[in-house]
Amino acid sequence: MCVPGCQEVVARRLSRRGLLKGLVGTTAGAAVFAAFPPPRAAHAADVSFTRAVDLTHALGEDFPTFFGKPQLRMERTAEFSKDGFNMYQWHLDEHTGTHLDAPLHFSADGVGADEIPMDQLIVPLVVVDIREKAQADPDHQLSVDDIKAFEAAHGDVPAGGCVAMNSGWAQHVASERYRNADAEGAMHFPGFSKETCLYLMEKGVVGIAVDTLSLDHGASKTFDTHYTWLPSGRWGLECLAGLDEVPATGATLVVGAPKIKGATGGPSRVFALV
Amino acid sequence: MCVPGCQEVVARRLSRRGLLKGLVGTTAGAAVFAAFPPPRAAHAADVSFTRAVDLTHALGEDFPTFFGKPQLRMERTAEFSKDGFNMYQWHLDEHTGTHLDAPLHFSADGVGADEIPMDQLIVPLVVVDIREKAQADPDHQLSVDDIKAFEAAHGDVPAGGCVAMNSGWAQHVASERYRNADAEGAMHFPGFSKETCLYLMEKGVVGIAVDTLSLDHGASKTFDTHYTWLPSGRWGLECLAGLDEVPATGATLVVGAPKIKGATGGPSRVFALV
Ligand SMILES: [Zn+2]
Ligand SMILES: [Zn+2]
Repeated sequence: MCVPGCQEVVARRLSRRGLLKGLVGTTAGAAVFAAFPPPRAAHAADVSFTRAVDLTHALGEDFPTFFGKPQLRMERTAEFSKDGFNMYQWHLDEHTGTHLDAPLHFSADGVGADEIPMDQLIVPLVVVDIREKAQADPDHQLSVDDIKAFEAAHGDVPAGGCVAMNSGWAQHVASERYRNADAEGAMHFPGFSKETCLYLMEKGVVGIAVDTLSLDHGASKTFDTHYTWLPSGRWGLECLAGLDEVPATGATLVVGAPKIKGATGGPSRVFALV
Repeated sequence: MCVPGCQEVVARRLSRRGLLKGLVGTTAGAAVFAAFPPPRAAHAADVSFTRAVDLTHALGEDFPTFFGKPQLRMERTAEFSKDGFNMYQWHLDEHTGTHLDAPLHFSADGVGADEIPMDQLIVPLVVVDIREKAQADPDHQLSVDDIKAFEAAHGDVPAGGCVAMNSGWAQHVASERYRNADAEGAMHFPGFSKETCLYLMEKGVVGIAVDTLSLDHGASKTFDTHYTWLPSGRWGLECLAGLDEVPATGATLVVGAPKIKGATGGPSRVFALV
């Protein structure tokens, strides 16, 4: 699955990033990027599947948000009984519902949602189950040890693929437990640790996905995971649904990312082909 | 690919539509629906692919629109140099760019974008090439004869699948030729005819797709195609790209439709798996 032009885009971004010289202040994001080769095309051989799993929550105006305020307003612009058809205008914050984080979200000039090469949007998917740990400790960060235990059981995480965290959080989407804010307003839900990001970058993984509101654990004040992962030219998915239905290995992820120019991410339709 | 709950949704919609009694005034949409069985699941057996084709145009604020006015505005809500991250709010008309028309778009109570069963979004795709006819006559409507000629060469259109029109119009997306408006403002580009819709409905096709701004041909004043196809519980895709790269038969379409509650459609990421 080689996309004409993708090599050129990556090369251009790389050279621009080369000029950046550590603008990403709080982390070693830019430096780390140079240390890891760009991920390779995911599928050399045939992919086959017999069914699909929808990893997308239905998104309404009341969907829980990271900042705690509504991020979608549907404005009716045509009404069937009056106009002969129905239509809405959406007023939508990009990071709402089951959605993509593009590299540009946490970098000065990373690629936007429209520039992610297509061969990084249809990729092998593995699902790391940390439901027990997350239930015991909502602040759990998916650790390098969690990944190594997964690899011991299921084989290496896939270069060119996506690693998803199943923390069991999708079941809380309609309750306060999804944000799980304490009296001070700090949230408590699981995420990836920074060290895990570095490990997965070394393995050539192109995407990470969570069933929570953030790639970082909810209590993070520094967003180390965002600042490590996204500026490296990799993408994230937040608020996934349906991971219980996906096997640990063998599925193919299809990220129906918005192809909106310069978008830093956005609501996506996400499927697992099993 | 059977989705839990989809049968219930369809049954509910059917009974509501039964109560509708021809509210869709200008066509026989509601009546036609009753005459055709609901489409069946697309894939009984394994699907395999080796590459993907992106059928999605990149969508910017200047993307051409049916009504001729901009339908997307990107409002910056965070800036990396100031805030440490980038973010936008989108102000977006649903029917912009490469996008879905849900049944609700042209019916009183058809299903919204979020309610289309997943097994109707990952389906066999055939591409009917009318590029020569469209170049000779921009008002050409893809006809039953066009379909029958296609079927004679390639076999039946797929029950449970999508029929796409390749009129060559995608190449005009950056020019005035895309809308091709005359001095009176009437547009001239190809679309599906109403009779073709009826034929495809009888065959159990679930979706039609065009590489132009409308399922109807541009000069239509009555939207017969929209009023025939969508109220029957079927979906459409408009402004597709990349159809030149898809074989006439054998591809699998993945419609990354927005799962936004009550949406009448919306920008979608669309892939063909080949
Ligand atoms: Zn986000
Ligand atoms: Zn439309």
